[in-house]
Amino acid sequence: MSVLVAGTIAIDDIKTPTTAHKNLLGGSACYAAISASYFAPTVLQGIVGHDFPAEHVETLKKHGVDLSGVEHSDGKTFYWSGEYFDDLNTRETLDVQLNVIEDYHPKLDESVAKSKIVLLANMSPVTQMEVLQQCHADFIIADTMDLWINVTLEPLKALIEKIDLLILNDSEAKQLAGTNNLITAGNRLLEMGSKYVVIKKGEHGSMLFAKNHFFTCGAFPLHEVLDPTGAGDTFAGALAGYLAKSEGVVSFKDLCQGVVQGTVMASFVCEAFSTKMLHELDDAKIQARYDEFIRYTQVI
Amino acid sequence: MSVLVAGTIAIDDIKTPTTAHKNLLGGSACYAAISASYFAPTVLQGIVGHDFPAEHVETLKKHGVDLSGVEHSDGKTFYWSGEYFDDLNTRETLDVQLNVIEDYHPKLDESVAKSKIVLLANMSPVTQMEVLQQCHADFIIADTMDLWINVTLEPLKALIEKIDLLILNDSEAKQLAGTNNLITAGNRLLEMGSKYVVIKKGEHGSMLFAKNHFFTCGAFPLHEVLDPTGAGDTFAGALAGYLAKSEGVVSFKDLCQGVVQGTVMASFVCEAFSTKMLHELDDAKIQARYDEFIRYTQVI
Repeated sequence: MSVLVAGTIAIDDIKTPTTAHKNLLGGSACYAAISASYFAPTVLQGIVGHDFPAEHVETLKKHGVDLSGVEHSDGKTFYWSGEYFDDLNTRETLDVQLNVIEDYHPKLDESVAKSKIVLLANMSPVTQMEVLQQCHADFIIADTMDLWINVTLEPLKALIEKIDLLILNDSEAKQLAGTNNLITAGNRLLEMGSKYVVIKKGEHGSMLFAKNHFFTCGAFPLHEVLDPTGAGDTFAGALAGYLAKSEGVVSFKDLCQGVVQGTVMASFVCEAFSTKMLHELDDAKIQARYDEFIRYTQVI
Repeated sequence: MSVLVAGTIAIDDIKTPTTAHKNLLGGSACYAAISASYFAPTVLQGIVGHDFPAEHVETLKKHGVDLSGVEHSDGKTFYWSGEYFDDLNTRETLDVQLNVIEDYHPKLDESVAKSKIVLLANMSPVTQMEVLQQCHADFIIADTMDLWINVTLEPLKALIEKIDLLILNDSEAKQLAGTNNLITAGNRLLEMGSKYVVIKKGEHGSMLFAKNHFFTCGAFPLHEVLDPTGAGDTFAGALAGYLAKSEGVVSFKDLCQGVVQGTVMASFVCEAFSTKMLHELDDAKIQARYDEFIRYTQVI
């Protein structure tokens, strides 16, 4: 089965305490699509401007990402610039220019809309809903962030009612659920309508909630995090790709294994700048780290 | 095999946002010994003053804790008073009176010193070393806290060289190892001389480090934490008791399972005030939660 990844396609400038780079391939959908492409045929839906570098198009093509859902506009590509501080746990957005995504209303070709697994990578829930309404998916995943909780809460709530899996980080889960207890938060988010919820906790791993199931997953142990940009998108992409690979009805066990794949892929992306590490992987490297992580978590 | 638990025996006053109680049974050794007693014969080493309530003695006896290592003094019992705020993640010590532990130099009876598993529960590393030097143990565990890193760093370092397992929480591990990366911290602490290191992360679980092994363990999901006092001591006690129960040379697998038992017992203690929940357990309740937790963590 193929996976459709819809979200932002961006040009990023990133600074960390040790280095800085400009004109990087960025955006939630790019990290997620490249990550998903290791597991299943991946179609990308999004929009770019006239300034989107040809080398980034080539990068996506090299990963076999189907770009037939990428729309082109005369404006400038979505731009994000950020800086990380101290232990890379603190990030400050230096500049955001919405540009072509400001008036983006996705139109899905039938070939794109037929994907059975859909990942609505992080972008406005209004745009996520527009994609959702054109899909014939069996399983819909949506990622979100604090910005959308703050500025588009009602559209986000409407979206959550229609999806199968909501992914968000711990502080966002607490904010959206109105509680400081993450377990309560996960269960309250289920009550908002999503069948499953994943709460990401960065270096502390993640938790998967269902009505009568729960799964707790650590993070892969990393001695050094060079650039955590896109780690959440990469996590979501791998999870979606893994589900597309699994065929059949999505089971809780599939989701647990998908969360582990997401954990593994997110750990890779943190080890180098931008998407760099995602270009250096192969199935054997991914499988080796998956097996290593399983050893780190099994007690029986 | 029996387990020796040496540490503080205290009278606690505790406030949380919802309740407050006085004259509670407290101290690292009491939480740890009661927890350990569910797994193996447990001997308690410590000191009490003339004011130590008879009911607390009865409580310990009810759990079958061997009190032959408890010394009595004319002074007042070690006293601690603390208050928790907000989401119970912030604690402020309101008052500490060392009293009888200020000049405590433990003298171990031969019957006490012969235990093969020894837990040096949280107290001054100078006193922990005095206990250690009188033991004939196969496996020595030491718990510590930020206070000892701040005021008795050299004795703590000397102790770490002589023990098998160091237990401490995440902020303490970072402080002692001089790094913000917990994985690096765990490995640096191994280099200080302890064969194994456990880093506790509260609601995010714990990690076990060995030279060529690693284990990551989530926390048991709790909707409500009523009073986290003694959770770390309870964790350490269960781990020590489990190792004593396991017999033979301590393996990495034993330690992983002991960490899970610690996780389970610590989750119970957080659900009620002070040691209350520890008095309401039985083997079946503990086993049921252990099995439940294993289901929450297994992916294959």
